Amino acid sequence: MQYFPPALESLVEHFAKLPGVGVKSAQRLAFYVLSLPEEEAAAFARAITDAKAHIHTCPVCQNLTEGDGPCPICASAKRDASTVCVVADPKDVVAMERSREYQGHYHVLHGVLSPMNRVGPDDLHIRSLVERVAAGGIEEVIMATNPDTEGEATAMYLSRLLKPFQVKVTRLAYGIPVGSHLEYADDATLVRALEGRREI
Amino acid sequence: MQYFPPALESLVEHFAKLPGVGVKSAQRLAFYVLSLPEEEAAAFARAITDAKAHIHTCPVCQNLTEGDGPCPICASAKRDASTVCVVADPKDVVAMERSREYQGHYHVLHGVLSPMNRVGPDDLHIRSLVERVAAGGIEEVIMATNPDTEGEATAMYLSRLLKPFQVKVTRLAYGIPVGSHLEYADDATLVRALEGRREI
Repeated sequence: MQYFPPALESLVEHFAKLPGVGVKSAQRLAFYVLSLPEEEAAAFARAITDAKAHIHTCPVCQNLTEGDGPCPICASAKRDASTVCVVADPKDVVAMERSREYQGHYHVLHGVLSPMNRVGPDDLHIRSLVERVAAGGIEEVIMATNPDTEGEATAMYLSRLLKPFQVKVTRLAYGIPVGSHLEYADDATLVRALEGRREI
Repeated sequence: MQYFPPALESLVEHFAKLPGVGVKSAQRLAFYVLSLPEEEAAAFARAITDAKAHIHTCPVCQNLTEGDGPCPICASAKRDASTVCVVADPKDVVAMERSREYQGHYHVLHGVLSPMNRVGPDDLHIRSLVERVAAGGIEEVIMATNPDTEGEATAMYLSRLLKPFQVKVTRLAYGIPVGSHLEYADDATLVRALEGRREI
């Protein structure tokens, strides 16, 4: 027999499909939604349909944006169009922007090369990156994929791909994170930190 | 500056309000929703508004139900109306129903007495329980609140409240959970299991 009313059961099922949400959590979330004031729940539902309807990828950098034109960063006259920072994910753009240091443009791959998960070059926004570089006007491409195996491999693959275009390809520096302790740094990080040491 | 497009930011904020969901998880959930096919996302949004619109509490037992009348359990002619099982939460009804053993009715308190969280008798569906018992026809009230301090206190409070009505008030048995190991049972459970021992 049906334990919850169908409308509640359906809501639980939708929550349970979310990544990292099990059936018990989904029930808790569904009960929470039931406890919301009418207009709050309506706003939540609207946020879902609105996000789905209005969010698109920027035709230039493939980052998420609203509307059809280029994203605010690509459209901004204040940003340096000669530098392109290549990241795996829109969340990485957020991390870079938070630092308030980078003033160039981006290119969002929407993933990294991963033979294990059957993600090849055609599954990422690589062709559009090559086309941007081939079109000229770009002097430096900064690889800012994650410093793990797949991120490294993706950066290496792209740097080889971009070589014919006479563009400078750089990689974010490795080293000890600011504010951390040497004793907790792993060997690979320490090796990279030594290799990358600078005169002070 | 705005890091995500506003529609995405708004969706993240809604997810972040859910219990147990932090900002990072909320971002992950929002990106998941963006990755859904159009109709899936629309169905999710609809599930929220539908649940909110159609789910009500049963006027008799206060369990969640669809529509305005009594819930299917209260309306069923097959269930024994002379026994009422008092639970704290609609989820507890689900747990009881799953056992397929109980054939009586329910009464859902929607919480337990908790002076720490300022939950008093008037915040729970206690008055309606007393009215049901006072109306007659009920022979036994089974207290099935959780076996913790607040659940115990609530059961004790209710049993005293129902005493004048000459109704049998019982409590679910305590003991070793079926399939568990004695060595992992806590002292309080073992004491209760000994107290409640039966001849075989």
